[in-house]
Amino acid sequence: MIQAEPRMPTAEGVRAAAAAVAAILPPTPLLPVEIGGVQAWVKAEVLQPIGAFKIRGAWWRLVSLSAEERAAGVVAVSSGNHAQGVAWAAKRLGVRAAIVMPHDAPAVKLANTRALGAEVVLYQRPQEDRDAVAAKLIAERGGTLVHAFGDPWVIEGQGSAAIEMAAQLGRAPSRIIACCGGGGLAAGLALGAPESAIYPVEPVGWDMVGRSLAAGEIVPAGADAPKTICDALQPLATKPINLAVLNGRSEPGVAVTDAEVRAAQRFAFAHLRLVVEPGGAAALAAALAGKVPVDEGTVIMLTGGNADPAAYGATIAGSD
Amino acid sequence: MIQAEPRMPTAEGVRAAAAAVAAILPPTPLLPVEIGGVQAWVKAEVLQPIGAFKIRGAWWRLVSLSAEERAAGVVAVSSGNHAQGVAWAAKRLGVRAAIVMPHDAPAVKLANTRALGAEVVLYQRPQEDRDAVAAKLIAERGGTLVHAFGDPWVIEGQGSAAIEMAAQLGRAPSRIIACCGGGGLAAGLALGAPESAIYPVEPVGWDMVGRSLAAGEIVPAGADAPKTICDALQPLATKPINLAVLNGRSEPGVAVTDAEVRAAQRFAFAHLRLVVEPGGAAALAAALAGKVPVDEGTVIMLTGGNADPAAYGATIAGSD
Repeated sequence: MIQAEPRMPTAEGVRAAAAAVAAILPPTPLLPVEIGGVQAWVKAEVLQPIGAFKIRGAWWRLVSLSAEERAAGVVAVSSGNHAQGVAWAAKRLGVRAAIVMPHDAPAVKLANTRALGAEVVLYQRPQEDRDAVAAKLIAERGGTLVHAFGDPWVIEGQGSAAIEMAAQLGRAPSRIIACCGGGGLAAGLALGAPESAIYPVEPVGWDMVGRSLAAGEIVPAGADAPKTICDALQPLATKPINLAVLNGRSEPGVAVTDAEVRAAQRFAFAHLRLVVEPGGAAALAAALAGKVPVDEGTVIMLTGGNADPAAYGATIAGSD
Repeated sequence: MIQAEPRMPTAEGVRAAAAAVAAILPPTPLLPVEIGGVQAWVKAEVLQPIGAFKIRGAWWRLVSLSAEERAAGVVAVSSGNHAQGVAWAAKRLGVRAAIVMPHDAPAVKLANTRALGAEVVLYQRPQEDRDAVAAKLIAERGGTLVHAFGDPWVIEGQGSAAIEMAAQLGRAPSRIIACCGGGGLAAGLALGAPESAIYPVEPVGWDMVGRSLAAGEIVPAGADAPKTICDALQPLATKPINLAVLNGRSEPGVAVTDAEVRAAQRFAFAHLRLVVEPGGAAALAAALAGKVPVDEGTVIMLTGGNADPAAYGATIAGSD
């Protein structure tokens, strides 16, 4: 990203974002779930209109643009769910949107983004730097960058889920377990739920936020990072803005395997009747695998449900 | 059924049932859905704790039992979802429950019913009459029959969904489209939503409620009724109590094919991120196939999500 970070996200900003989100989107259900004999909670963000929590940050970023900025349009980088969030918000507000997406993004996410009226610009993952592709686009056309996680409004918008769940629960959650790509959601939750322990969950080998938290500095994913079915959770590195918020506020990062993620998808199918994509099931996977402690005040984020039909069908049928 | 019908269900009973249900179960979400360019609504009953609306009628029937009746236990007949509803309510209230279920009920429904602590008594479908099996059990052991649809409390309990959706919508629905097995849900909705048009949807060849409404008398399913993937929607005949309520209040019945039901399951997966079993998708199938008109006041019931994993996986992957 070539722009300087304009400001840090704040708890006050999260509360403002929650009000803006509540004005246009009903709260997603907080549903009971039994894990190891304990009744905890899942926040069903898969029931958002775009099937993912990313609509929160995208909406807060776009409604916060000035009239001049709206006229110039937006450019976003995304593996698919942020893309749909930005496209949804842009359509509502009549803003032109171009989204930089990886060539290997799930077909369903590409199709949904285009169906919402956004222009999709593909890049090669992992060879090309998606931020550089976006920067070039902005240099050519103008417009505001809406980064998927390294943006104060986007972080505040994602944090609105924390305000919602506390109201639904009637108290601050003891713990919030959330999938983690670049750390936008985790940072927003940390600001929005100051009394709750925050557990970011990443795919094994793509746990750069956890490693960055441990090192106290940004550690990018290695060139040898393994394949993961969590297509939504593999940015190359977190950003200073995310690390700054999470440092000292986040529990140590947790990493989950593809097998644990598939088991969580099957659990959500059988016990919650919710469709959850691999990345969206990472937090539940960590809870089911006993990698994060669960009590009756724990909220597990089910963040996205835009699953590839063939892969999902195979996972549910138990044939992969 | 050898017992006489004890009374007719009433609109007042539906309102009382809605209060009893609201005391123990949060409202299921009413979610927007776009069908043919029109924004209508789905009532997501798959998000009930047992994954189906049947928890409503079972709860209202069991909390309405006297202390003496509770002590004697209950006997239910069910293809699977009513079974789980009765088992769930019985467990909560400390009532002994025996459930008569078909030998070919989906394994997931048999397992869930047993997991809730109920005794499962299998019968051979279609050779044996499940009502006769239940009557024999009651003659031997005592207890109250909790019929899946031919019971005034069960009908009133199912109707509580109508009270909920009107409150969520802020007005009476124009139309309610609901799957139909024996007609318990349709009858409850007819009483609970007196201003709304009620459309019962049945599987092709198992549309005995539609045929009974047309004939003005009970028409049982023929011995030559075809196979259907809607395991929850194939009782052999409706009951006088259901027909009495629906006569003159229901729109003509609609029948859907297996292919239309599978298309609806895939639509719910891709656009709503909800797992819906075949029978639970029948109403959506009718709407998507254009067999029932849809406007912005239409509510489509998504009634059950206890799907067999192998069959569901194949449907979603598009391989059946």
